[in-house]
Amino acid sequence: MSQPATEVAASSVGTVETRYLDLPEPVRLDCGRELHPVRVAYETYGTLSPRRDNVILVCHALSGDAHAAGRSKTPSGESTRDGFGAEGHGKDLGWWDGMIGPGKAFDTDRFFVVSTNLLGGCRGTTGPSSIDPATGEPYGPDFPVITVADMVRTQRAFLDVLGVDRLAAVAGGSLGGMQALQWAVLFPDQVDSIVVIASTHALHPQGVAWNAIARDSILRDPDWQGGRYYGTGRAPDAGMGVGRMVGHITYLSAPALEDKFGRRLQFSDDLRYTITEPEFEVESYLRHQADSFVKRFDANTYLYTSRALTYFDLARQHGGGSLARALDRVSARTLLIAFSSDWLYPPSASQEIEQALRGLGKPVELQVIEAPYGHDCFLLEEARQTPIIRRFLRERLL
Amino acid sequence: MSQPATEVAASSVGTVETRYLDLPEPVRLDCGRELHPVRVAYETYGTLSPRRDNVILVCHALSGDAHAAGRSKTPSGESTRDGFGAEGHGKDLGWWDGMIGPGKAFDTDRFFVVSTNLLGGCRGTTGPSSIDPATGEPYGPDFPVITVADMVRTQRAFLDVLGVDRLAAVAGGSLGGMQALQWAVLFPDQVDSIVVIASTHALHPQGVAWNAIARDSILRDPDWQGGRYYGTGRAPDAGMGVGRMVGHITYLSAPALEDKFGRRLQFSDDLRYTITEPEFEVESYLRHQADSFVKRFDANTYLYTSRALTYFDLARQHGGGSLARALDRVSARTLLIAFSSDWLYPPSASQEIEQALRGLGKPVELQVIEAPYGHDCFLLEEARQTPIIRRFLRERLL
Repeated sequence: MSQPATEVAASSVGTVETRYLDLPEPVRLDCGRELHPVRVAYETYGTLSPRRDNVILVCHALSGDAHAAGRSKTPSGESTRDGFGAEGHGKDLGWWDGMIGPGKAFDTDRFFVVSTNLLGGCRGTTGPSSIDPATGEPYGPDFPVITVADMVRTQRAFLDVLGVDRLAAVAGGSLGGMQALQWAVLFPDQVDSIVVIASTHALHPQGVAWNAIARDSILRDPDWQGGRYYGTGRAPDAGMGVGRMVGHITYLSAPALEDKFGRRLQFSDDLRYTITEPEFEVESYLRHQADSFVKRFDANTYLYTSRALTYFDLARQHGGGSLARALDRVSARTLLIAFSSDWLYPPSASQEIEQALRGLGKPVELQVIEAPYGHDCFLLEEARQTPIIRRFLRERLL
Repeated sequence: MSQPATEVAASSVGTVETRYLDLPEPVRLDCGRELHPVRVAYETYGTLSPRRDNVILVCHALSGDAHAAGRSKTPSGESTRDGFGAEGHGKDLGWWDGMIGPGKAFDTDRFFVVSTNLLGGCRGTTGPSSIDPATGEPYGPDFPVITVADMVRTQRAFLDVLGVDRLAAVAGGSLGGMQALQWAVLFPDQVDSIVVIASTHALHPQGVAWNAIARDSILRDPDWQGGRYYGTGRAPDAGMGVGRMVGHITYLSAPALEDKFGRRLQFSDDLRYTITEPEFEVESYLRHQADSFVKRFDANTYLYTSRALTYFDLARQHGGGSLARALDRVSARTLLIAFSSDWLYPPSASQEIEQALRGLGKPVELQVIEAPYGHDCFLLEEARQTPIIRRFLRERLL
């Protein structure tokens, strides 16, 4: 669906370019290692206030990148949006363009919005496909195993270079929401508020399992070559494609698939009696999603990012097993948004966070949006999130 | 958990041996082809009545075989039970031993229970790993694409040879339940009753998707070799293992995984920071399940059987899109059992069948059992199914 040009212009941050910044110091990691050099890919939207007190850090999910809003000056040809969310979404548009811009949820008339590609990424920030200075070759499996906290420490170091001490807000969905929570725990004095969407304090065992299956699918692909596939002309596309299919189904709800595809056949009214070819529309959809994803994403980044999000466990990391103890240091106001049909990051996870914060007497608000599309709602239900987030951020200004 | 020897003896059908029977005629298939020769692997338990009116056909699910009850005379070393259901289940015991035997749900003091390996199988019945008489080599991808109706026609032809015209009941769970439904539609005058457990008249699109992912994982494994891997020393174990992991998670409920594994680590109290090794207990469990499955199962049989169960669609095949029209010819009494936590074959599917049959004025009973383990309940909740099935089968005798 295209909008009239004037309307696009009025609500868009316009054409943007991803920039790159090299951190001056090594990043210390949870695993005990240090990483240096670290480059961070980033974009900014809006204007930094003279007091530098209007910064919102936006954190992306597993397969996103720094290009969160506006039209890319150098479009890569593939939006980081895919699945249901790709429909009607311009290929050069940022993955959260509906949420970031003048008058939008993250209003660039008021806020200076910063978006970075996360540590371990494959879209400009240092990750397993980056050159290891020790060898002159891509890190591959020698890249250190990173955590969500490591991603956040990298963002902290990046913002130091930008001269930004405090954040008005950290916001993100899914793995992005984990980063927002991690910010509030690691740097309680530097975060005014967090917006945690379709996320959790610790992925439930079924989610751990789905991620393990997706990773195993990559690891078992002989083209993975122990992680040293760069420059060989072969990459574990087959395995990552299967992993991505698993992901896609977990991001959607069963009723959404019923509504969208039903049991319709792809090519004819009759069965074709084929084992190797797609027969149902949903089968074709999955193959298409897998094929387009492997063109734009690095398998090792998938492995490392998936591992980081399964490791994430605020209670274990910061509370000796107690979520309340882990959240005790939080001083940020917290907005939690969950979606009724999200079974990967279910509302119950957000409720646990809400109850823990409320029990500690901390300001917290949970909004559960009734919506049918599952976890992908955090990208699809922009219109209904917008007034909630705008009001939450405005309260801070009062 | 082992039982006292006397108790085993009292409720067991004892030691059994799988037998084999070659059908005299070709089997005509839905795809238009004929298959010949067709061998059927089978076991029987109990005694055929002089009037041959006490026969129950038991149909297995995707990964089962003809060894449904008793102790195998020639144990293969791996039960076809796995997952949660493998615990405390002897390796040489049939997959439904808790349900078939003297005094059990399918009471061998009254009934002559017949169990066959399904068409396309890899445990004795003709399937893709069988020798194609046209080439002298295993069929592999030249095996015709089969349907649930083809499986049932094969069972019909097999029972003809045994001299059995009518069935007191056809029973099965999951794909086995589809076969029971298919019997009632294809041969309405020859089936007194059907017991359809944790099954459906047509798999919902999310289930179609899971199956497509599992098949794609096999197809994308280079060791699949276009289906001609027999005798090459390489088989698509890696891909089938991933497919089986997907299956396992869909057979269980998220709360069951939470209850069983939580987020417990496998090897220590601390993270080991590993990408390639399992870290959480649920990750180890999945790998173990995959590894043991690939030792006992043929990947092509997995592909063909998975395809057949996604094709199964009573309304499309027999009702021009209407389930009621498809079921109009049914004369069997129908018992449907579903499990509250089964999200792969949810209670709603059984309710649709119940409502269609009730609307047609046909005798039907639906029992939804509240149980937490998901689809695997049909194997795990034997104790609670037993009185329901015994009563249902007894009513027939009145």
